[in-house]
Amino acid sequence: MTLVENRAPELPGVMSRLYARTGRAHVVGVTGPPGAGKSTLVDALIGRLRAEQRSVGVVAVDPSSPFTGGAVLGDRIRMQAHFLDPGVFIRSLATRGSHGGLPRAARDVVRLLDAFGMDVVLVETVGVGQTELDVMRLADSIVVVLVPEAGDTVQVMKAGLLEIADVFVVNKADREGALRMVSELEQMLHLRPASAWAIPVLPTTASLGTGVDAVLAALQDHRTFVAGDPDRPARAAGRRAGELVDILEEEMRRRLEAGLLADQNGLGALLESVRSGHVDPYSAALRILQDDDALAALVRERTA
Amino acid sequence: MTLVENRAPELPGVMSRLYARTGRAHVVGVTGPPGAGKSTLVDALIGRLRAEQRSVGVVAVDPSSPFTGGAVLGDRIRMQAHFLDPGVFIRSLATRGSHGGLPRAARDVVRLLDAFGMDVVLVETVGVGQTELDVMRLADSIVVVLVPEAGDTVQVMKAGLLEIADVFVVNKADREGALRMVSELEQMLHLRPASAWAIPVLPTTASLGTGVDAVLAALQDHRTFVAGDPDRPARAAGRRAGELVDILEEEMRRRLEAGLLADQNGLGALLESVRSGHVDPYSAALRILQDDDALAALVRERTA
Repeated sequence: MTLVENRAPELPGVMSRLYARTGRAHVVGVTGPPGAGKSTLVDALIGRLRAEQRSVGVVAVDPSSPFTGGAVLGDRIRMQAHFLDPGVFIRSLATRGSHGGLPRAARDVVRLLDAFGMDVVLVETVGVGQTELDVMRLADSIVVVLVPEAGDTVQVMKAGLLEIADVFVVNKADREGALRMVSELEQMLHLRPASAWAIPVLPTTASLGTGVDAVLAALQDHRTFVAGDPDRPARAAGRRAGELVDILEEEMRRRLEAGLLADQNGLGALLESVRSGHVDPYSAALRILQDDDALAALVRERTA
Repeated sequence: MTLVENRAPELPGVMSRLYARTGRAHVVGVTGPPGAGKSTLVDALIGRLRAEQRSVGVVAVDPSSPFTGGAVLGDRIRMQAHFLDPGVFIRSLATRGSHGGLPRAARDVVRLLDAFGMDVVLVETVGVGQTELDVMRLADSIVVVLVPEAGDTVQVMKAGLLEIADVFVVNKADREGALRMVSELEQMLHLRPASAWAIPVLPTTASLGTGVDAVLAALQDHRTFVAGDPDRPARAAGRRAGELVDILEEEMRRRLEAGLLADQNGLGALLESVRSGHVDPYSAALRILQDDDALAALVRERTA
């Protein structure tokens, strides 16, 4: 786990050995705007799954401060009830720099939990930004959690949530406006082109456990649907090819940075003139990219 | 602009010629949770800046659907009043894939608007995710916009907004709870270690134009403060070096993808076995990374 979070150079080697043991877990993404009660729902889902003797991995993706690097883990505290249960494995992931680092770390942690034999892996993201949507692409099934007071359905569309949801949950359904929100969402879904999977809109009061069984049943139905989807093999092939490029790119970036700092092929002087502002970054990049030998030396550089 | 959004291969060449003309605009980030009235505030700021004969560039970053690629531009419509004004240049940026594409495109569009001679460039992000925080790093000054009903100050901390704000705006200040929110934020700011820049908390009713002059004055103060900050040269040097690595990485990824598809050094067969699932992506990546000649051939590959 620590190798994954620190994006250690040994990572591809470790992951390649585990890969054959992956592909069995049901990976469920849980997302939605802040304050919708995602953690409470995840907590309730863990409870039900454990009652069925199913093992559960949880990956909680927290946006963290770009300055201190620290994540606010208030919501995690309520999951403490499960920390002592050996059938539950919870991991919080904070940001590790930018450049797609968080979606990659989340992908690898999900793979690890899958390889460790977890029956279900829940991936929870706080917030509704692009990185969070990227993380959700990992999931086999995506639950979008909303609350009546989180704004109207236009906000849902704005955040791009309508198009990623496999199951909608309107949480805090005991509050005013919940039923109206359910019917608004259903109407919006009716406006879309017909699809083989009918997205359900399920009211829950996760804090009381109400409606949680229906969410689990819908997720099971969706998993069965996906398994029979004729487009699935082509999508999986595309995902694997993209993953190869991702892994190569991450290692390339590591070598690029190390190579520049190590003054490989005299590039240290160029880096220094970029730092001082004498050469702009674009011109420096062009100079390196037009010099095949410099480039080859940079990416050959061994960081070990 | 189109070159930037499509991440065209000619981009570094174009940007390197424009670079010398950049660095004059005041780049102001405007962010906050959905529904806080960011677009209304941006609209009001444009109006005041134009009244002072200052030219304004606006970069509106929209999260967009990962499926259709289309952005919901409802809020943009209200900016139409400015579309005919030659002193205002508005550009909406939707997502162009993942892998840090959006922050890079935003950075280059800001550079272009700066080179075109805009006095102020306003960068507006919808949402509070990690990508949006990355985009905000472009800005010289960051305005975080909140509304009384957007949740308590804990939500602000959770979203990492406390640590990026140079100026807080509590919008819709005519609503209940606005003054309480202002004082809560001020108390929270007092708990932080003392800093040379005192972050102001300003109430506005952007739809009526109330409080907007105070926001502009605070931004001007912040700009003056930043110009005199002794840490500024070191930060700028670090940013330029990071930019060089970013540009190289983006081009490397392009070459990697093209090289794999072009069956460079027989890698097409390896790609095919990854697609079919016979070789896992990590093992394939290791095979390529351990073969210096294959790697050098991949990154030398000319896409032109």
